[in-house]
Amino acid sequence: MSKNRILAAETAEKAEEEVVLQGWINARRDMGKISFIDLRDRSGIVQVVLVPAELGNSADLVKDLRPEFIVEIRGIIQKRGAKQINSEMLTGEVEILAKELKIISQAEILPFELGSKQNLDVYLDYLPLNMRAEKNRAIFKVAAEIVEGYRGYLYSQDFTEIQAPKLTAAATEGGANVFKLDYFEHKAFLGQSPQFYKQIMVGVYERVFTVGTVFRAEKHATSRHLSEYVSLDFEFGFIKDYQDIMQMLQETMRAICLRLEEKCENDFKLHAAEIPVVPKEIPVLKISEAQEILYKEYNKDCLGEPDLEPEHEKLLCEWSKKNHNSDFLFVTHYPTKKRPMYTMPDPENPKETLSFDLLFRGVEVTTGGQRIHDYEMLKNNIIKWGLKPEDFSYYLQAFKYGMPPEGGIGMGLERLTYRFLGIDNIKQATLFPRDLTRIDERLNKN
Amino acid sequence: MSKNRILAAETAEKAEEEVVLQGWINARRDMGKISFIDLRDRSGIVQVVLVPAELGNSADLVKDLRPEFIVEIRGIIQKRGAKQINSEMLTGEVEILAKELKIISQAEILPFELGSKQNLDVYLDYLPLNMRAEKNRAIFKVAAEIVEGYRGYLYSQDFTEIQAPKLTAAATEGGANVFKLDYFEHKAFLGQSPQFYKQIMVGVYERVFTVGTVFRAEKHATSRHLSEYVSLDFEFGFIKDYQDIMQMLQETMRAICLRLEEKCENDFKLHAAEIPVVPKEIPVLKISEAQEILYKEYNKDCLGEPDLEPEHEKLLCEWSKKNHNSDFLFVTHYPTKKRPMYTMPDPENPKETLSFDLLFRGVEVTTGGQRIHDYEMLKNNIIKWGLKPEDFSYYLQAFKYGMPPEGGIGMGLERLTYRFLGIDNIKQATLFPRDLTRIDERLNKN
Repeated sequence: MSKNRILAAETAEKAEEEVVLQGWINARRDMGKISFIDLRDRSGIVQVVLVPAELGNSADLVKDLRPEFIVEIRGIIQKRGAKQINSEMLTGEVEILAKELKIISQAEILPFELGSKQNLDVYLDYLPLNMRAEKNRAIFKVAAEIVEGYRGYLYSQDFTEIQAPKLTAAATEGGANVFKLDYFEHKAFLGQSPQFYKQIMVGVYERVFTVGTVFRAEKHATSRHLSEYVSLDFEFGFIKDYQDIMQMLQETMRAICLRLEEKCENDFKLHAAEIPVVPKEIPVLKISEAQEILYKEYNKDCLGEPDLEPEHEKLLCEWSKKNHNSDFLFVTHYPTKKRPMYTMPDPENPKETLSFDLLFRGVEVTTGGQRIHDYEMLKNNIIKWGLKPEDFSYYLQAFKYGMPPEGGIGMGLERLTYRFLGIDNIKQATLFPRDLTRIDERLNKN
Repeated sequence: MSKNRILAAETAEKAEEEVVLQGWINARRDMGKISFIDLRDRSGIVQVVLVPAELGNSADLVKDLRPEFIVEIRGIIQKRGAKQINSEMLTGEVEILAKELKIISQAEILPFELGSKQNLDVYLDYLPLNMRAEKNRAIFKVAAEIVEGYRGYLYSQDFTEIQAPKLTAAATEGGANVFKLDYFEHKAFLGQSPQFYKQIMVGVYERVFTVGTVFRAEKHATSRHLSEYVSLDFEFGFIKDYQDIMQMLQETMRAICLRLEEKCENDFKLHAAEIPVVPKEIPVLKISEAQEILYKEYNKDCLGEPDLEPEHEKLLCEWSKKNHNSDFLFVTHYPTKKRPMYTMPDPENPKETLSFDLLFRGVEVTTGGQRIHDYEMLKNNIIKWGLKPEDFSYYLQAFKYGMPPEGGIGMGLERLTYRFLGIDNIKQATLFPRDLTRIDERLNKN
C-alpha cells in the first residue's frame, strides 16, 4: 500500500475515493460473513466494512482482529444509505469498504470493554488503556486547549513566558504540605507555587506568565486533592489597583472559553457539558456583601467569618446565575489574616486585602490579588507573619531595587478542566494523578 | 496624569506628541543643570531629558533619582538633532522632554552598575537584579520564543500537548542521578524525563509533545550541568521509520529559527550571535561514517568507539559547516549497548540502533530515535538490560494493548538557548539555576 494515509475525520469529504487509513480497532461487530470495525485514529472514528470477497489475500486476517489491534486499511469511501446514517458520529454518513487489510500491531485481549464504567481504582490501574476511550481523550484535549487559550491571550497582551524552578531552598510560604528531599549534602523542597519567582520577574519583564507543575504534600484522599498539579500563573506590574488584575483575568478567561467553543465543541458534547460563557462584566461582591446576601436570601449566618465554606460558594454561584446570568462571580476583600504575607491590605481598611477569588459554578477556580511592592512594608509584613526576612532575602532583593505596583493570579489546570466538564473527581482530569495512595501504581502494593 | 501610558518602543513613531511613560531608571547622566535618564520598560529604553524649568513642581524630585527608581514621566517626544541621533538604540532618533515627573517606587543604591561584568557567583547572588540588564533580559526572551516556535509548529502538525508528571515511583530508566524523596509512608523519585508518559500517550493521541521540568542529581559542578532543566519532548506514532522523526525535528527546528528571526533579531544582536539557519536538508552521517571522517580528515582515531567525545563533535560540526554549509548535523546509528532499553535496533544490524543525535555548532542539542513498539520485544529487552518487567508494568501496559511504530526526541531548552546565543555557561541561560552548590542562595551558607 503506497498511498498516503488520511485520517478518519477526512473521510466524510472524500466519498467514492480510494484511501488508506491507519488506526486502532475501537470495536468489532460481526453480521454473518460480514464484519464491521470502528477504526479510531487521532481525529476520530470511522466505520470499516470487511467483506471477505473484497479483501483478496488479506481476508484471512479478519478472524484475528480484536479491539486495540492496529491496522492499515485500503478501501473505498462509500456514502451510507439513508437508513444507515449514524447522526451521532461525525463520520456517520460514510463507511469504508475495505479492499486490503494489514495488521500493524497486535493487542492482547482487553480486561474490559473500552469506555466501560469502572470504579476509580480500577480505572486508574488501567489508565494507559482507559485514556484511549473517546470520552477520556476529550478531557485532555480540553485541558490542552485551556492552556493554549490562556497562553495565547497573555502573549497577545505582551506577557513573557517564564519557566519557574521546582526545587526550592525553603518552603515557599511557610506552612505544611511541602515535600522535602535530600539535595546532595543539603535539604531541598518542592515548590508549592511559582509565586516568588513570577514576582521577581515582574522586575525584569513587567508582565510574565508561567505554566508549570507545583507540589502539595496533601495528607487527604479526597476528590479534590492531588500531590502535584499544573498551575497557570500570571503576574504583572504598573497596575492602577487590584481591579486591573481582575480585568486581565476576566479577559483571559473569555479567551479560553472562546477557544473551547472553537476547538472543543464535540469534547464538551461527549461529557454533556456546556462550554462556559464569560459575561461582559463578571459580577463582583466583597466577601462582607456576599455574607449579607447569604444571611438575607439564604438564611445562612456566616457574617464576619474570615472565609467562605464550600456550601456558601455554591449558594453564591446560584445567586450570581439567577441575578446576573453569570456562571462566574468575583469575591473580593478577604481578611488580611487569612491571606499570605505578600497580599496588599486595603489602605482604607487594612483588615481587608485587595485580593479576590473567582468562583465558577459553585467553586473557587482562581485566587489572586494585588501584592505589596514596597520593600519596607513587605519586610515588616514578613516579620508580622512570624517569619524571618533573612529566609526571604532572595525574594526581597527584587523589591529592594525597585518594583512597580503589581499583582496576579494562580489557577489549577486540573481544577478548571474538571469543573468546566462537570467531572466528579479531579483525578479523572489529571493525566497521571498522584495522591496519598498512588503514583501510577498503588503504593500499598510495595 | 490621566493620560494612558505608552511604551518606550512606541515613542519613535509619535514625535511631537505629549505622552506618559512609566519605567525604571536604567541610567542617569548629569550635564550641569540638565539631567538625562534612560527610561527602561518592557519594550526597551528611551532617553528622557530633565530640565528643571520645564518640570514645574516636580523639579525638586530630580535630585533624588537613582538607577532602578521607578518613575512616571509626562513629556513631549522630540526628534533629536542629527548629531544627537544614537543609531545603537532602537529609539535613538527621539528623546522625551519631561514636563512632569512622579516617583512610583524607590530603589536602594545598587551594589554595582547594572549590566557590569561579574564573576558567576556574584552574578548569581544578584540574579533578581542582574536579570534586568538588557543583555540578560534578551536571553529569556529568546528562550520564550524557542518554546513558542516549538509548540506552534507541533500544534500545526496535529500534536496534542500533554502535562507529564514529575513525581515517579521508580527511577525512570534505572541509573544514578535521581533525586529521592519521602512520599508520605513511601519513597518517590523526581522524573528524569517524560519518556514513558509521552510514549503511553502515543497510544491515546498518536502525536504528543510536552514542555516540562526534569531533574538530574548531577554530582558535577561544570558549565553544562544543572539539577533541573526544561525538557522539550515530542513523540509520535504511525511512522515509517526513524527518518520520519528526523524530518519532524528538522522542520520543528526550522520553525523555531524562523520565529527567532521574526521576534529576536535585537536579542541576538545584543549577544553578537547569529540566528541559526536550518538548511533544506540537514546532513546525516552514521556514527561509523563520522568516525571514518574523523580518522581520514582530522587524524583522530575513534573507529569503533561507542560514542563521540566532545572534541569529535566539534570537528564534525566544522566538517558539516565546511562541506555542507550547515550549522546542524545528524549522527545516527549509535550502538545498541549505549542506548536505553526502549531504543529500536536496526533490523539489518541489531548492534546498531535507529537512533540519532542532532549536533549544532559543536555540541549535541537533541537526542531521539525510533522506539520498540512490540510488547514482547520490549519486555525481552528490559530483561536483557538487567531490569525487571514488573517494575515497568504501567509502561508496558500501553504496549500490551496495541502501539504503532513510533519515536520521538528530547532536548533541553537551556542548552539550546545558550548554544544559540553563544553564552559561556548554561547557568546564564537558566532562569533560576540549581546545582551542587546553589538553590537561589549559596547552600554552604546554611
